[in-house]
Amino acid sequence: MKVNIGISNRHVHLNKEHVAILFGSELTKLRDLVQLGQYACNEVVTIKTSKGEINNVRVLGPVRNYTQVEISKTDAYKLGLNPPVRTSGDLKGSESITIIGPKGEVTIEEGCIIANRHIHMNQETAHELGYINDQRVSVKIDTIKGGILENVHIKITDDGVLEMHIDTDDANAFLVEKGMTGEIIDGD
Amino acid sequence: MKVNIGISNRHVHLNKEHVAILFGSELTKLRDLVQLGQYACNEVVTIKTSKGEINNVRVLGPVRNYTQVEISKTDAYKLGLNPPVRTSGDLKGSESITIIGPKGEVTIEEGCIIANRHIHMNQETAHELGYINDQRVSVKIDTIKGGILENVHIKITDDGVLEMHIDTDDANAFLVEKGMTGEIIDGD
Repeated sequence: MKVNIGISNRHVHLNKEHVAILFGSELTKLRDLVQLGQYACNEVVTIKTSKGEINNVRVLGPVRNYTQVEISKTDAYKLGLNPPVRTSGDLKGSESITIIGPKGEVTIEEGCIIANRHIHMNQETAHELGYINDQRVSVKIDTIKGGILENVHIKITDDGVLEMHIDTDDANAFLVEKGMTGEIIDGD
Repeated sequence: MKVNIGISNRHVHLNKEHVAILFGSELTKLRDLVQLGQYACNEVVTIKTSKGEINNVRVLGPVRNYTQVEISKTDAYKLGLNPPVRTSGDLKGSESITIIGPKGEVTIEEGCIIANRHIHMNQETAHELGYINDQRVSVKIDTIKGGILENVHIKITDDGVLEMHIDTDDANAFLVEKGMTGEIIDGD
């Protein structure tokens, strides 16, 4: 079972209040993402801690009910953070970070995570493939520096488009580039 | 079969001529590495291309017959390079890079690689375990963001100490930290 791979670079989701503080206006679309209704914004921010900062971090739209900063372990070392590996929206006890925009800044007490590996799909595909939400599978990547990614979470949503999301550490470790596929080999 | 994991950050090996050009003196030992006779030096260099540079890159001793720069894919993107995945010393057709020291600089036509994953061992251990040189095995890493690293090369030398070397991309992708072990699960 082949699955397209999407590589998630560090990015930020914002709630309405934080968009207003950081930009003083609405988010504007740069380009659509594969997942329906999701898009990269023209807006970028700086994310900062007492140990370091990273510029030009893309904001993804649309606005959410929560603000969330998704980074890689490589980014975490640079920022002196130890974020938990989490599903989007599961932010309790995650790391604090400061987000700086052109019009203002916000420090969130929690919300900085390393996103878990996951495969988006809709209910119909999940039913066909026999998966339930948050089930974990393994995915084989066939490159000269490949292997098997374990603990890949099945993420079922109404608008889900079949696609695996991994972060830049996974992609760079396994030499995964845009357009590549992986193979779902089993459940854990 | 458990194996200790060593994480190799980007580093440089130098030949005698290049040590003289970059530092104007001999290499000096900072600390011994696990592999017998190998050591981290006090000396650091900058590695540079037309696209970017990385400072404070550690030189490893002792002096070798060839100069070699080992980086991760993450580093490669920053430097605008596409280095091949290679065994140490196998440098034909690998990437060109400039190395800058306090006393001078050197541009090597080839020598910049991404090191392949490998497990050091001596002849006796290899015989006991039934491995031959450059045989490839897979290693399972048991973390919340773990999996299986494939194409791990067995590297047999007289002074080899049983230890797997992976780069920082592999370590960060799989959340591997100093002191962790992996499990050799099979040959490819």
